[in-house]
Amino acid sequence: MTIIGALDLAAVLVFALTGALAASRSQLDIVGFIFVACLTAVGGGTLRDLMLGRDPVFWVSAPHYILIAAGAAIVVFFTAHLLESRYRTLLWLDAFALPVAVSAGVGVALSVGALPVIVVTMGVVTGCFGGLMRDVVCNEVPLILKQGELYATAAFAGALSGWGAMWFGLAEGWALLVAGGVTFLLRAGSLALGWRLNAYKPRPPKTRP
Amino acid sequence: MTIIGALDLAAVLVFALTGALAASRSQLDIVGFIFVACLTAVGGGTLRDLMLGRDPVFWVSAPHYILIAAGAAIVVFFTAHLLESRYRTLLWLDAFALPVAVSAGVGVALSVGALPVIVVTMGVVTGCFGGLMRDVVCNEVPLILKQGELYATAAFAGALSGWGAMWFGLAEGWALLVAGGVTFLLRAGSLALGWRLNAYKPRPPKTRP
Amino acid sequence: MTIIGALDLAAVLVFALTGALAASRSQLDIVGFIFVACLTAVGGGTLRDLMLGRDPVFWVSAPHYILIAAGAAIVVFFTAHLLESRYRTLLWLDAFALPVAVSAGVGVALSVGALPVIVVTMGVVTGCFGGLMRDVVCNEVPLILKQGELYATAAFAGALSGWGAMWFGLAEGWALLVAGGVTFLLRAGSLALGWRLNAYKPRPPKTRP
Repeated sequence: MTIIGALDLAAVLVFALTGALAASRSQLDIVGFIFVACLTAVGGGTLRDLMLGRDPVFWVSAPHYILIAAGAAIVVFFTAHLLESRYRTLLWLDAFALPVAVSAGVGVALSVGALPVIVVTMGVVTGCFGGLMRDVVCNEVPLILKQGELYATAAFAGALSGWGAMWFGLAEGWALLVAGGVTFLLRAGSLALGWRLNAYKPRPPKTRP
Repeated sequence: MTIIGALDLAAVLVFALTGALAASRSQLDIVGFIFVACLTAVGGGTLRDLMLGRDPVFWVSAPHYILIAAGAAIVVFFTAHLLESRYRTLLWLDAFALPVAVSAGVGVALSVGALPVIVVTMGVVTGCFGGLMRDVVCNEVPLILKQGELYATAAFAGALSGWGAMWFGLAEGWALLVAGGVTFLLRAGSLALGWRLNAYKPRPPKTRP
Repeated sequence: MTIIGALDLAAVLVFALTGALAASRSQLDIVGFIFVACLTAVGGGTLRDLMLGRDPVFWVSAPHYILIAAGAAIVVFFTAHLLESRYRTLLWLDAFALPVAVSAGVGVALSVGALPVIVVTMGVVTGCFGGLMRDVVCNEVPLILKQGELYATAAFAGALSGWGAMWFGLAEGWALLVAGGVTFLLRAGSLALGWRLNAYKPRPPKTRP
């Protein structure tokens, strides 16, 4: 198995767990769990492959991705009640899935010889869109839009670092590790320590005298 | 016309009617009716074709699909006021469109030689995503997420049965009939008789003594 | 640069501004601005290219589109507080972006030899979906669904006029100008003068005597 294949697999597994947890918060049945888990697991990578013109998308020619996502959903269906806080678990699993997916996106874009801007964009797309679809479909506030949290920012900084590491001469494997590491560091720092960027705040409107 | 072409056509027509009814509930104008009807009608099949790498997607090379969806929207615009309950009509039309689209998805996936997991997945995608887009855009609660209703479950069981029927040696036409029949039976049973799967229910939190 | 390239570029720039303004209304951070701006800027054209089977999509092989959208987002982040009404500015910028994107959609569809129905459809898709994604992700009421406003209608009428102009023998450049002009006229008339189509209004239910 290639590095990229392994990264896609890990991202699919962990994102599937977050999708199933979101399904549990919406109190769906077991097929609903599988549906949301698969959507979250392959959503970002599917968009990446469509935009890059990889044909067909990664999970169509290798069906174990779907089976793994479905298996993860079934496990969560029967064990989620053991968790103390399903939302906190979802947040932290998502924080592990995001960096892996960003690495996978950067790796795939490099492997098709994409230009630097596109490499970074594909890292962000692969990382962020699975979770975004999960949140839109389950009617949760998208994590990517939560004020003051580093989410798209973590993905963007990670993808940029990964590309930068390549540019400075690191081997691809190490560069993908840098991409994932920076993404995880920023996202986990945001979750655990409250790291944040300033959100846009309009000045209060001037009142007429 | 091939079997698959006929199934796509029937799914387009009936899903367009449901889209137009959703537009009537959002009180759109006639172009809004056409827009939502077309989105619902071709949404699921478009995703299927993109993922399978069919190029271009089915309705681009055969524009009568769009014309039929638009025509259905116009008919609904002028006749929806005659309906006693537009939502009940929407639900039942959707229950007819879902099985046809599941069959079309299974049929297309078989025709490109997809693996069994992908055949079932494409049945579910083709069946469910048109209605999901309709509901997200019109701000309705997605039918697929309604607790205790068989929707994704009906599509999944239908697609699986269709593939199973092929595996047991039935001709493709009959297998597609099985796929559609099982889907409709489960969905209609859920609507009319309240058939349901258990939804995930967390145990009540333990209270400290 | 071709006419179509210039239209895509203009649509990307102006839609990016509207995306950044929507991000400012959701009080995102600067990377959030860039994310929503890029999504809005390339969303419609990406869908168009995927459906027409253009491979890869337009901005993947020409990364300046993404850089321009990101630059526009950064400018808005630091200057939006100078605006008197960010929503009014968003509405009017969107009214400029819509016609340009409709023209780009019509132009691309003509350039790949699409059939008339598809030319018109691609005009509407390219024009409307970037803004629709922006509104769904930022949780605004989609402009396309606002009752009584000409939005999809303006795009539809514009795309149809553009195709009609070609059919009557106008050169492609002029036909695209007609498409954009008609779209802008209708959209601006709707915003400034309240032009509208009748929305669907169900008759009040008959009360039993």
